[in-house]
Amino acid sequence: MPANPSFENSKQVLDNGYVRLLDVMGDDSSPDSDARISTGIAARSEDQQTTLVRFLLRHKHTTPFEGTAIKFEVRAPIMVIREWFRHRTFSYNEESGRYKQLDPLYYAPNEERVSYQAKSNHQGSGDTHEEAAKFVVQWKDEQAAFEESYNELIQTHNVARELARLNMPVSHYSTFIVTGNLLNWFRFLQLRMDANAQFEIRVYADAIFEIAKQYFPRSFEAFSDYWLEAVSLSKREIDLLKQMMPSAIGQDAFTSAMPAPSPNFTKRESEEFRQKLIRMGLLA
Amino acid sequence: MPANPSFENSKQVLDNGYVRLLDVMGDDSSPDSDARISTGIAARSEDQQTTLVRFLLRHKHTTPFEGTAIKFEVRAPIMVIREWFRHRTFSYNEESGRYKQLDPLYYAPNEERVSYQAKSNHQGSGDTHEEAAKFVVQWKDEQAAFEESYNELIQTHNVARELARLNMPVSHYSTFIVTGNLLNWFRFLQLRMDANAQFEIRVYADAIFEIAKQYFPRSFEAFSDYWLEAVSLSKREIDLLKQMMPSAIGQDAFTSAMPAPSPNFTKRESEEFRQKLIRMGLLA
Amino acid sequence: MPANPSFENSKQVLDNGYVRLLDVMGDDSSPDSDARISTGIAARSEDQQTTLVRFLLRHKHTTPFEGTAIKFEVRAPIMVIREWFRHRTFSYNEESGRYKQLDPLYYAPNEERVSYQAKSNHQGSGDTHEEAAKFVVQWKDEQAAFEESYNELIQTHNVARELARLNMPVSHYSTFIVTGNLLNWFRFLQLRMDANAQFEIRVYADAIFEIAKQYFPRSFEAFSDYWLEAVSLSKREIDLLKQMMPSAIGQDAFTSAMPAPSPNFTKRESEEFRQKLIRMGLLA
Amino acid sequence: MPANPSFENSKQVLDNGYVRLLDVMGDDSSPDSDARISTGIAARSEDQQTTLVRFLLRHKHTTPFEGTAIKFEVRAPIMVIREWFRHRTFSYNEESGRYKQLDPLYYAPNEERVSYQAKSNHQGSGDTHEEAAKFVVQWKDEQAAFEESYNELIQTHNVARELARLNMPVSHYSTFIVTGNLLNWFRFLQLRMDANAQFEIRVYADAIFEIAKQYFPRSFEAFSDYWLEAVSLSKREIDLLKQMMPSAIGQDAFTSAMPAPSPNFTKRESEEFRQKLIRMGLLA
Repeated sequence: MPANPSFENSKQVLDNGYVRLLDVMGDDSSPDSDARISTGIAARSEDQQTTLVRFLLRHKHTTPFEGTAIKFEVRAPIMVIREWFRHRTFSYNEESGRYKQLDPLYYAPNEERVSYQAKSNHQGSGDTHEEAAKFVVQWKDEQAAFEESYNELIQTHNVARELARLNMPVSHYSTFIVTGNLLNWFRFLQLRMDANAQFEIRVYADAIFEIAKQYFPRSFEAFSDYWLEAVSLSKREIDLLKQMMPSAIGQDAFTSAMPAPSPNFTKRESEEFRQKLIRMGLLA
Repeated sequence: MPANPSFENSKQVLDNGYVRLLDVMGDDSSPDSDARISTGIAARSEDQQTTLVRFLLRHKHTTPFEGTAIKFEVRAPIMVIREWFRHRTFSYNEESGRYKQLDPLYYAPNEERVSYQAKSNHQGSGDTHEEAAKFVVQWKDEQAAFEESYNELIQTHNVARELARLNMPVSHYSTFIVTGNLLNWFRFLQLRMDANAQFEIRVYADAIFEIAKQYFPRSFEAFSDYWLEAVSLSKREIDLLKQMMPSAIGQDAFTSAMPAPSPNFTKRESEEFRQKLIRMGLLA
Repeated sequence: MPANPSFENSKQVLDNGYVRLLDVMGDDSSPDSDARISTGIAARSEDQQTTLVRFLLRHKHTTPFEGTAIKFEVRAPIMVIREWFRHRTFSYNEESGRYKQLDPLYYAPNEERVSYQAKSNHQGSGDTHEEAAKFVVQWKDEQAAFEESYNELIQTHNVARELARLNMPVSHYSTFIVTGNLLNWFRFLQLRMDANAQFEIRVYADAIFEIAKQYFPRSFEAFSDYWLEAVSLSKREIDLLKQMMPSAIGQDAFTSAMPAPSPNFTKRESEEFRQKLIRMGLLA
Repeated sequence: MPANPSFENSKQVLDNGYVRLLDVMGDDSSPDSDARISTGIAARSEDQQTTLVRFLLRHKHTTPFEGTAIKFEVRAPIMVIREWFRHRTFSYNEESGRYKQLDPLYYAPNEERVSYQAKSNHQGSGDTHEEAAKFVVQWKDEQAAFEESYNELIQTHNVARELARLNMPVSHYSTFIVTGNLLNWFRFLQLRMDANAQFEIRVYADAIFEIAKQYFPRSFEAFSDYWLEAVSLSKREIDLLKQMMPSAIGQDAFTSAMPAPSPNFTKRESEEFRQKLIRMGLLA
């Protein structure tokens, strides 16, 4: 297992969950060297690798990110797993409720997570925190009741596990192994680190991001810059923006704002930026 | 929607579930006509189509079965959906517990389903049926208790639906739309109609099979013959079989058992069969 | 075959190629109705469908576009097919050089296509057009020579087709059937209608776009607006833009530029636009 | 790069091609340990691993083979690449005829390969070998002519590479990187090591098999036994076989032929075999 022992390779997530890196294939120079087969030019300096990796992600040339693999073991509530497994390009192996009695682990949100939701509903109410605390107690009681029933059906009555789990709550934790290449992970992270994703899966995505980017810092930086934190304006929005702009930026103002060319912002990228601004009516 | 109104297009499954055909692209001549692009020979008689479709499935030339689409709406317990969605080549859209309060529908097995399991565990016991009935009552009580709690959290306390569902049991029904081509469906059915599949998903697979085969009778018959009901012997098993055979079948016995050539068993298939038997040491 | 006879369902492409619609599953209301299973709200007015379809594509909720299918027959030069088949989510069946002798059809670019390339190389040269004409003649001669050789090997010498094709030029036309859902087609079109795509595949993408959008006008309009003609600014570009902006637009200028709410630009979208501009430092 | 230096990691294929192992993730215990997450039972002895891996492949539980990766660099004629890239679950990066002038390497079959084809066509003819030699010379001449023309267009006339390659023969070599997991490779190998696959791709499949199995000997042995060298009998063939069998094997003959239980043929597998033989009417 090539996990670098000097990195943080596992993280606790939620009350009883975790993500744990199992294996990695390739490193941050893999996208560069796989891309270079197209042009036949041998791998070069670190700076040239950065330039190429940024170019690739900027222009959605994504195949060079596919010649890698990152494999995790994850423990998460079933409700999170249900969302996760909608990502169909990953390979999965999961604990089976047919073949084993699942461990007695359940997810219960803390009060702040609940309060936050309640507040937005009845604002100004002073007792949301207390109320939230009551909900959490109730949820834990329900989970304990299920656990007792589940355990008794299997241990005492010898009911088949595949039936005994009938009323298992989706807050129950299960464990799985997930393998994907860099592109698969980028797609997952872009959707699941988004503010619109449900909190419970977002914290898993955040943990994956932190661990994986140690192994592919250059690729993940480009991913953050071009995908995760980019802003996209539709054709209609561009047209509206043109209407409302009092005056365009002058070429001089553009030129003087441009940084000195570097692998992190090459002359080529600067020119592409200039063309975009012209197309958006922001640059005269 | 091209669903043929003279066919049975929906079926109830389990206590509160169903499968319902929404749409179909192509018909039983599609695999034939798509395959014929390879050879440039125009579509021909029904018999020739049968011959070709059987040849294609027999030799795992599966791409001609991909130029079709079959789309269903399905209501199933979450535990079944969890298994179904492991099939990653389908397209899915599912009811969302974040965006709506799910309908109060739960799966409870009937006593026979429970008894069957229990019997295999404590054989000879005379009271399994009564015991099973008690389990079913208990499960229904648990489901009613969850429903009351879920409803109160949302209606009375205004808790976000995405949290209120925390302890939703996997016996709760949800609804989804699933689209796949013939090959995707063959792969699903081969795994889920198998005797080793859990009963609760097998009954859905059986229902899909019954509805879909009305639209592609020739393709599904070939699928049954070559995939579903075929027997595969490993190299090692073949070697063992050779050892234990007292004597091989003679060519005459083979020849006289062969049916007259027909689209359902052509001369070519007969010759392939002969070669297999020789390879297995069954034919002299 | 549900191809609407009042639509243009086939187009010639290049000198000997074409795209021809074979089949369609679903229509422009399919993404709306598949998406509504999430919320359980029944299909509504045309305007509400437009609003939802635009929302879905804007936020990359792409699964509702997968419950459809569009199937084409295409004749294209092998060099184009080589690029096309890199799109791995489509289903393909192609003419086989092993099983049939391919028709004597070759692609030769017209002089303008060649001149255009040559001009950018030796600008100012007055004779590029004549030179280009010579290249075209040479290419056609080479193709005729291959055809003669290919034909003789098969017809006269009975060489196996799979070997006789050894030196078949990638300008040779081949025919294939391709099936994909709306999302698959969007992904293909975004890459292949791009100005950076090679001319020879771009004209196929353009033809597909023209035919398909007749069947899904609302979906393709949203695709054009949000994907095809959108401009994306990276985090770094946003930071640079902030530096060079002399002053932000005022809220009043924004408000007065906003169109009256409509399905094509709802209040919600207007608010999302406002948030983007603030994030980009364009709006005070 | 974890390529084991004591293994043979590259092989020449055809006249100018090769396959070269670039990277591997996982080893022969990976399928076992990924599968064990289902049951929660910790990894055990080598023998137990063999037993489990064989069980998994026998019953088509294929996901545990997906948590691995094997990456190759391959140089092959375009005609081979065209077939290879039909396998859509692999990740690919290929040399680009748009971005570089391809190296002057072509595939020409040796005379034996040609003779073999010709013989089956005009049997008894004494001069096929001479004739074949002439074809090979002709092919090489055509390739040299293309090379000269291609080179002149680019070097002398500055024609864009994307057009200059217009008549590039499919015998021209190109280079690509291909990454897949064990399951992807099994699927590829089963189709391309088959006697019906074209010779030119079969030799690549054979070379991949030889290199990869050094890293996953247990998995590849099970693959050979259950997939590659297995024989499958259709329902109809089983029915016919029953008719033609003079008498079934007796239980005693079966029992005495069974080997002593071992990881390579467990009691469970022996019982499964017995059930198959009964189902096939071979065992009384």
